Amino acid sequence: MAFELVSVDGHARAGILKTAHGDVKTPAFMPVGTHGTVKTLSAQELKEVGAQIVLSNAYHLYLRPGEEVIKAAGGLHKFMGWDGPILTDSGGYQVFSIADFIKVKPEGVYFQSHIDGSKHHLTPEDIIRIERDFGSDIIMPLDECVPYPVEKSRAREAMEITIDWAKRSKGFFESSKLPTTNHQLLFGIVQGATYPDLRKECAQRLTEVGFDGYALGGVSVGEPSELMYEIIEGTSAALPKENPRYLMGVGTPLDIIEAVRRGVDMFDCVVPTRNGRNGTAFTWKGKLNLSNAPYAKDCKPIDESCDCYACRTYTRSYLRHLFNAGEMLALRLVSLHNLYFYARFMEKLRDAIVDSSFEDFIDGFKRSYAIR
Amino acid sequence: MAFELVSVDGHARAGILKTAHGDVKTPAFMPVGTHGTVKTLSAQELKEVGAQIVLSNAYHLYLRPGEEVIKAAGGLHKFMGWDGPILTDSGGYQVFSIADFIKVKPEGVYFQSHIDGSKHHLTPEDIIRIERDFGSDIIMPLDECVPYPVEKSRAREAMEITIDWAKRSKGFFESSKLPTTNHQLLFGIVQGATYPDLRKECAQRLTEVGFDGYALGGVSVGEPSELMYEIIEGTSAALPKENPRYLMGVGTPLDIIEAVRRGVDMFDCVVPTRNGRNGTAFTWKGKLNLSNAPYAKDCKPIDESCDCYACRTYTRSYLRHLFNAGEMLALRLVSLHNLYFYARFMEKLRDAIVDSSFEDFIDGFKRSYAIR
Repeated sequence: MAFELVSVDGHARAGILKTAHGDVKTPAFMPVGTHGTVKTLSAQELKEVGAQIVLSNAYHLYLRPGEEVIKAAGGLHKFMGWDGPILTDSGGYQVFSIADFIKVKPEGVYFQSHIDGSKHHLTPEDIIRIERDFGSDIIMPLDECVPYPVEKSRAREAMEITIDWAKRSKGFFESSKLPTTNHQLLFGIVQGATYPDLRKECAQRLTEVGFDGYALGGVSVGEPSELMYEIIEGTSAALPKENPRYLMGVGTPLDIIEAVRRGVDMFDCVVPTRNGRNGTAFTWKGKLNLSNAPYAKDCKPIDESCDCYACRTYTRSYLRHLFNAGEMLALRLVSLHNLYFYARFMEKLRDAIVDSSFEDFIDGFKRSYAIR
Repeated sequence: MAFELVSVDGHARAGILKTAHGDVKTPAFMPVGTHGTVKTLSAQELKEVGAQIVLSNAYHLYLRPGEEVIKAAGGLHKFMGWDGPILTDSGGYQVFSIADFIKVKPEGVYFQSHIDGSKHHLTPEDIIRIERDFGSDIIMPLDECVPYPVEKSRAREAMEITIDWAKRSKGFFESSKLPTTNHQLLFGIVQGATYPDLRKECAQRLTEVGFDGYALGGVSVGEPSELMYEIIEGTSAALPKENPRYLMGVGTPLDIIEAVRRGVDMFDCVVPTRNGRNGTAFTWKGKLNLSNAPYAKDCKPIDESCDCYACRTYTRSYLRHLFNAGEMLALRLVSLHNLYFYARFMEKLRDAIVDSSFEDFIDGFKRSYAIR
């Protein structure tokens, strides 16, 4: 079994996910490296901030640089210079959000590249083959995402195709297993929009197929937070206890708290890096926007309680100057700080679960986080 | 004496420049950190690549973030998080190349900020005060630069004002000396365009005033290389042997060779960092443009003989992908590699001078460098 449940506090879980490139202590946050790079940061810095696993994207890498380039490198780990675990998203979400002229047919998706307009056709089997070739530690199958709000009939249709593709993905995954790819894990993706009964049905039917872990897809697509939490709660409860649960594309520290509280183990989100590039830093006393005038002569670090490289070396005043002057170093430093904050935050969540003090930790965190 | 001449080979010199923030072994290359940051790189990386001293710019920092911000930080070293030596250019060159509505009057310059159009007036004394406040280890005075080509009468006029300002700068520098600023050095800047007699006269008259070092300004402004070398040779010969000589804004490895051969000790240039951001890498076998198609599946490092972080970790194939995808990490990595190359290149030049094998080293370097 790739996942070991270490401790439970209410519905919150602390676990260990074992991969060929190392263990991941959960709950875990995965920095997003869509194009095979966590934007602005080196592999060494990812280690330094304590990233345990990074996410990349099969759709994006399939289009650019292409499968052949990554195969020539000996896989995605070597290509990226990252020897820790990698989860690759299939790109189902990307196909539906950024590709042009998409057609979903039972056999797969037809689309034009958002980069050069070239025409492509990918089956669920193709996606698994690509991720196998990349050497991903965790493989996500092709799924169909729907927007919010959406008619129930449309949500069911997308759910059915997602389940069908999940079965085919599992089949191809099994038949393409080689001694060298034996370590790879395949997750299933639960769809069903904001309909609790669809989510539950999808979770159960995927569980019958059997995956190494289960993801909640199609969340945080515009629905209110409370509705998202409800869907997380219901879906999580319908999933097997012994497998990791991954909430795709979420989120803020407060969203992560609510999801961990409801039994989620894994997260990915562009929030810490995208915010970092925009000058917004996460601290234990809330977010701060470093471009703001009050920081002009502020010689404190971003967060006085933080010991990341940015906080050890630079002041808010300097970072504000760099943002104002359009200097790239600023984007790096705040991305680095934010990922460091996220990694510490996840560690503290985990420690609190292990100590059976999850709710106390949350109370304390929220009081402090609301200060600024 | 702040400068110690260690070895001479022909006109080429190996020396040590002593500053309050550490010794600089010459010939030395100074990475350019115009806005108080060597573009894309952290202070830690500058140490790692072996940068001995960095250059920044009083004009730019005066406009943004402003003197008060840097004073609040406790000086430029603390502001930048860099504890090695800093040379600040006065910004004479920048005033003439990028400011708007410039008026040069005997008392100083009048101009509008290129950032926000605000009006400013700076005297030579103001510039020294600013650089004193910044805590610069090496202070450059305000000078007047002329373009190429230029009438001799105009070149003389600019030279005369440069000498007058140099005297006033020295006067203010002396009168503003405090126990805390005792370590700062003041260089004089030789102007005179491409007129050898003007350059010689300027060098001699500045030597009479007396500075800690002497710079050649207003070179590499469009004149042919041969003419530049001639001017360097003549000016260098007219300067005192016991002081460091700094060629401003130069250059490529080949230009640096020709200048060291003619007695120059210090250099600054945007070439390694600007080229790095454009995907052009320096190697011992010449330059290579990492965006080019032949590197798509090239799994070699930028330079197989290089042990910088970029070369130890990443392939040409990966870097090409990052450039194609517009990923910032690429700009960092090639900037880092290029500065590492420059630092090693300067070390080798110095070693060759010390070993009295300068010309042999140059022959070998040029043969190898012409390969690609």
